[in-house]
Amino acid sequence: MPAPSTLALVPFISVENMMRFVLHVGLERVLVELAGEIEADFRRWEQFDKTPRVASHSAVGVIELMPTSDGEFYGFKYVNGHPKNMAAGLQTVTAFGVLADVSTGYPLLLSEMTFLTALRTAATSAMAAKHLAPKNAHTMAMIGNGAQSEFQALAFRALCGVDHVRLYDIDPAATRKAAANLAGTGLRVTSCTSAEAAMEGAQIITTCTADKQFATILTDNMVGSGVHINAIGGDCPGKTELHRDILLRSDIFVEYTPQTRIEGEIQQLSPDHPVTELWQVIGGQATGRTSAKQITLFDGVGFAIEDFAALRYVHARVKGTSFVQNLDMIADPDDPRDLYGMLMRAKG
Amino acid sequence: MPAPSTLALVPFISVENMMRFVLHVGLERVLVELAGEIEADFRRWEQFDKTPRVASHSAVGVIELMPTSDGEFYGFKYVNGHPKNMAAGLQTVTAFGVLADVSTGYPLLLSEMTFLTALRTAATSAMAAKHLAPKNAHTMAMIGNGAQSEFQALAFRALCGVDHVRLYDIDPAATRKAAANLAGTGLRVTSCTSAEAAMEGAQIITTCTADKQFATILTDNMVGSGVHINAIGGDCPGKTELHRDILLRSDIFVEYTPQTRIEGEIQQLSPDHPVTELWQVIGGQATGRTSAKQITLFDGVGFAIEDFAALRYVHARVKGTSFVQNLDMIADPDDPRDLYGMLMRAKG
Repeated sequence: MPAPSTLALVPFISVENMMRFVLHVGLERVLVELAGEIEADFRRWEQFDKTPRVASHSAVGVIELMPTSDGEFYGFKYVNGHPKNMAAGLQTVTAFGVLADVSTGYPLLLSEMTFLTALRTAATSAMAAKHLAPKNAHTMAMIGNGAQSEFQALAFRALCGVDHVRLYDIDPAATRKAAANLAGTGLRVTSCTSAEAAMEGAQIITTCTADKQFATILTDNMVGSGVHINAIGGDCPGKTELHRDILLRSDIFVEYTPQTRIEGEIQQLSPDHPVTELWQVIGGQATGRTSAKQITLFDGVGFAIEDFAALRYVHARVKGTSFVQNLDMIADPDDPRDLYGMLMRAKG
Repeated sequence: MPAPSTLALVPFISVENMMRFVLHVGLERVLVELAGEIEADFRRWEQFDKTPRVASHSAVGVIELMPTSDGEFYGFKYVNGHPKNMAAGLQTVTAFGVLADVSTGYPLLLSEMTFLTALRTAATSAMAAKHLAPKNAHTMAMIGNGAQSEFQALAFRALCGVDHVRLYDIDPAATRKAAANLAGTGLRVTSCTSAEAAMEGAQIITTCTADKQFATILTDNMVGSGVHINAIGGDCPGKTELHRDILLRSDIFVEYTPQTRIEGEIQQLSPDHPVTELWQVIGGQATGRTSAKQITLFDGVGFAIEDFAALRYVHARVKGTSFVQNLDMIADPDDPRDLYGMLMRAKG
């Protein structure tokens, strides 16, 4: 059988190569660079073809496709969310994605995105906080110490100057894991035995818990004035973390309103409750934080443009390096109309 | 860096391995087996989560995602349609797809689908004709002799008893290519210099041309009573092949009405023009052909369930064989909550 032509080959970043790439560049530098790419794409928000993600729900989880395009590139991510996976030793969230050339429709990159999603989620949260958190915020409470927590902590250090994280998880083993991982990063880490304790002295409160059910991780009386809440665990219908009364006291910032109304904390509110889209704050069309007493809330659910920015970033960064391997994914007959002839000639 | 665990590995069918698989089993046998799988899934149509494909249109083409699920498996296909690609030596349509486990959200298979789409399209057309074409049909006109044509011809022979194909393409080189490819298959092949000539004596008329614009491949006066039309080239908004008057004389059968109203020949008709879904004919809930004079029209646009059936078919067929290679696509930390630790340990 003849070797596939170069047109047939799609660069692929495996999990191992993604880890090698991140370690090679340095995790915090990747987070900073990624936040820069995401911010640049948020600034040109109106150029993108946007659609709420396409979700397939089952009793135990959800599988989603998240496509978007800027007219030059097209990207989509496949991602699942299965809270019960953890008990079976599987990831709650796994993902992969594809970047393609709009002018030909040919895929340009296939990449693992379990790591890349963790990185872009942390980068997006920190980018939002850079625009919304109180000035000189240095202490962050982290409620939920799962797979996302260390990436959040390091992104907030690199982008927002956070130097102290206060950890709490309903499962002390998760807190021990996160504390052990963050020891030696230079961050001051305090492990706490309640959400209330974790929030003492924190200007930023990150909630990233994983249960697929209406939960109340934070009640109204726990949240003082002036804080920034980075609420990223509530990200699908029926999955929320904050008591409704907190939302009513907060100025709420979202990625893409039609999607967040379905998936975010604001599914608890009326469909016309005012929210501000983050890209407008970044671009100067809307105001972010206006007073020291204001509670700002980033109701983050993850949007396709963040994945698109992440795919474009790694595509540009790994091109021609040993971090990619080529996959024979696209049939490329000598004559495009002769797919059958290609098959017959493969007989050899 | 430690070797990835087996949970991290997703079986992948490359283009080369798809060709090896088809040649190993035999093309016509694959077409027959595929038609059987598609028909079986059409019989349980109501079990599927159905949605029109998610399309991203540009001036030069379209990129689409086609997801569906039966509650046990989830499948989606990525497919582009770029008519001008051919002039640049690229495929008009390329595709790949993924089958996943609904209970965990983990991918079970990544497969090239340029070949697989050509195969499932031909199998679906022949399956439809088996239920709709006049009895004892033996001659098929094929208007459009591009990449799909040989697969159509062989599927109609294997499933419907067609023994004579009459070829016509606006480009004589395409007809020469198809005729050369079909020589030696046992089919009688007649190359024609007009669509009218190709249709002489044909009981089945297949149109599979590729221009993305309203075209009139068949005019009303060309189509006599009693034929079955297999119209598969018109498959996106603005792309049709048949004159509207032919549609008005035909009984029209479609895959999934909401999608075909947007993409099929029936985009030329009012949104309430009666059509019958093919699965109802197959399941006995609706009648197919009722008289020898009737014109039956399969307005085929390609539906996600066909890709789903094709992915499940190859998944079952190639499992554990040398037709798959394993890709390290899913991050699989020892502790699912410890993605960060997995990254740090990769420094090793």
